[in-house]
Amino acid sequence: MAQLTYKDAGVNIQAGEDLVDRIKPLAAATHTPEVLTGLGGFAALCNLPQGIHDPVLVSGTDGVGTKLLVAMAAQRHDTVGIDLVAMCVNDVLTTGARPLFFLDYFSTTALDVEQATAVVSGIAKGCQEAGCALLGGETAEHPSVHGGLGYDLAGFCVGVAERAKLLPKPDVQQGDVVIGVASNGLHSNGYSLARKVLLEQAQLPLHATVDQLGEPLVDTLLRPTRIYAEATAALLAKADVKALCHVTGGGLPGNLHRVLPAGLGAKLHADSWRVPEVFELITRLGNVDRSEMYRVFNMGIGFTVVCAPDQAVHAQAALSEAGEQAMLIGHIVATPDLSGEARITIE
Amino acid sequence: MAQLTYKDAGVNIQAGEDLVDRIKPLAAATHTPEVLTGLGGFAALCNLPQGIHDPVLVSGTDGVGTKLLVAMAAQRHDTVGIDLVAMCVNDVLTTGARPLFFLDYFSTTALDVEQATAVVSGIAKGCQEAGCALLGGETAEHPSVHGGLGYDLAGFCVGVAERAKLLPKPDVQQGDVVIGVASNGLHSNGYSLARKVLLEQAQLPLHATVDQLGEPLVDTLLRPTRIYAEATAALLAKADVKALCHVTGGGLPGNLHRVLPAGLGAKLHADSWRVPEVFELITRLGNVDRSEMYRVFNMGIGFTVVCAPDQAVHAQAALSEAGEQAMLIGHIVATPDLSGEARITIE
Repeated sequence: MAQLTYKDAGVNIQAGEDLVDRIKPLAAATHTPEVLTGLGGFAALCNLPQGIHDPVLVSGTDGVGTKLLVAMAAQRHDTVGIDLVAMCVNDVLTTGARPLFFLDYFSTTALDVEQATAVVSGIAKGCQEAGCALLGGETAEHPSVHGGLGYDLAGFCVGVAERAKLLPKPDVQQGDVVIGVASNGLHSNGYSLARKVLLEQAQLPLHATVDQLGEPLVDTLLRPTRIYAEATAALLAKADVKALCHVTGGGLPGNLHRVLPAGLGAKLHADSWRVPEVFELITRLGNVDRSEMYRVFNMGIGFTVVCAPDQAVHAQAALSEAGEQAMLIGHIVATPDLSGEARITIE
Repeated sequence: MAQLTYKDAGVNIQAGEDLVDRIKPLAAATHTPEVLTGLGGFAALCNLPQGIHDPVLVSGTDGVGTKLLVAMAAQRHDTVGIDLVAMCVNDVLTTGARPLFFLDYFSTTALDVEQATAVVSGIAKGCQEAGCALLGGETAEHPSVHGGLGYDLAGFCVGVAERAKLLPKPDVQQGDVVIGVASNGLHSNGYSLARKVLLEQAQLPLHATVDQLGEPLVDTLLRPTRIYAEATAALLAKADVKALCHVTGGGLPGNLHRVLPAGLGAKLHADSWRVPEVFELITRLGNVDRSEMYRVFNMGIGFTVVCAPDQAVHAQAALSEAGEQAMLIGHIVATPDLSGEARITIE
């Protein structure tokens, strides 16, 4: 009878060790002064930042969704890690927290060290952009879980907030303004619909330039989600902010109401910002209803800020200085009889 | 042209909302006094426990590996969540930290609310056993990522340690003893090999009783990984411990050396603990070399404790009182010329 080993069963421990060697310097480059290293190796250690009087831990987890399938089709693996960090960090930022550290979970059918290194290099790049440390992660090789050749990614971010400065604040009121911070395209939501319309139905080629986009479709589809960490830090330092919202799955209507007190909603003006061409292309080629588009995609607004009218100029200035496009897109209104996303109107 | 919606593209938002309604009470039941709720919903908030003078944050992430495939084959989904928590929490415990909160990532081809609720009920059960709060999670529906009908799970645990009590301590020395804490079987490692030998090669039926095991194979294969949280708390309260080790992927040789200072190793006595029958079955049916078995499986020891000889009686007593089987399995030796797992011998 032939002897069986773990490798015969589809698990290659050596490839895992090679990957760890490749990842180590990438992770080390993201380390902040808070990171504690050199103690065992089962778990990752991190100090609390100094100068926070009454710290609250803020955590978020997310994945990249079917944007991964575009990365696999295009064999371009160094950008989805940025998306992963962005999706988690932008959530954590909405509480007013500073992102502190990040861990990733990478699960693959068959470990390809080059591919996995590219993915982690993106994660490390995202962490550097977000100012948080890539503290650890798990690489799982599951010969059968994913069916075909493919991988999945999950991210976990922990930040820390000063309790007295937690957002959203309870004093959001009618007449407060909503500032929209531009997205750079699809970010990481709505890819099941985007792929269905652009790739399956319209059968647009991934690598040819699309006139309406002015670039190859793959560049549009794989553009990394903006990370609003620097912008948020600048904003909170210079303006009195009441609420922050990450425009993720569910779009503006599905997310903005989550940071508003009961009885209040927002009236947004659709002509107050530019909708990126990719959304117009999906609308036209898929004959997708406008309200469905707003519920699935960010439609050009990746992050929103709620503040009193007299703070708007400071908020916009801080965001612009940090390199963001920020515009007044609406205001807070009373919606006593409405609940959930019905509280948000876009006209 | 037919109008396309997000649901047409394979994403069912309603099922996701139904799941959230089912999960909420399960998560709420795990909440500790540290959990802060009711603020927004993008991220989860948690206080630091009181009474910790100089806190260090400890984090770990892990998955369940191909044990998931057994759960899918058996259509029994309420135990793998316990494994997920165990894999993360046992790692965090090795630093001397108290587990504080947990987040999960659940990714599936097609969201089945019953199945997902069963999975999360296991996660909640594991969190209760570990004394940590299930603070949040992400459910991702990826119509194509996983190929067939299936799901993947990742977990993320954050704990907090008193800096002065962090483990491993640097004073581990020759002559210190190694105490083994019994596992209850396979835990969550080596399933690619276990499945290959037991299910593919020997073609043992999942649901019939296997004489050597005294129970149906599915019960052996899906027995939830032990969570050593209560045991560790009792142990650290009553004995002076130098190092703790979670026997995870890589087995005793692959893990114990990770918590020992350079130049030291351990000599373990194979006859000092009982190897559960499932490992003997895999050895025999797969003709697997004994040293390979020790590198892939825990072989009956799920967690180890290193302490000075005069602390062993206190450590064993504390573990026994907490309901664990604990036995002296070896001692620390000088291994000046060896590195990595070569520092661990099992004879």
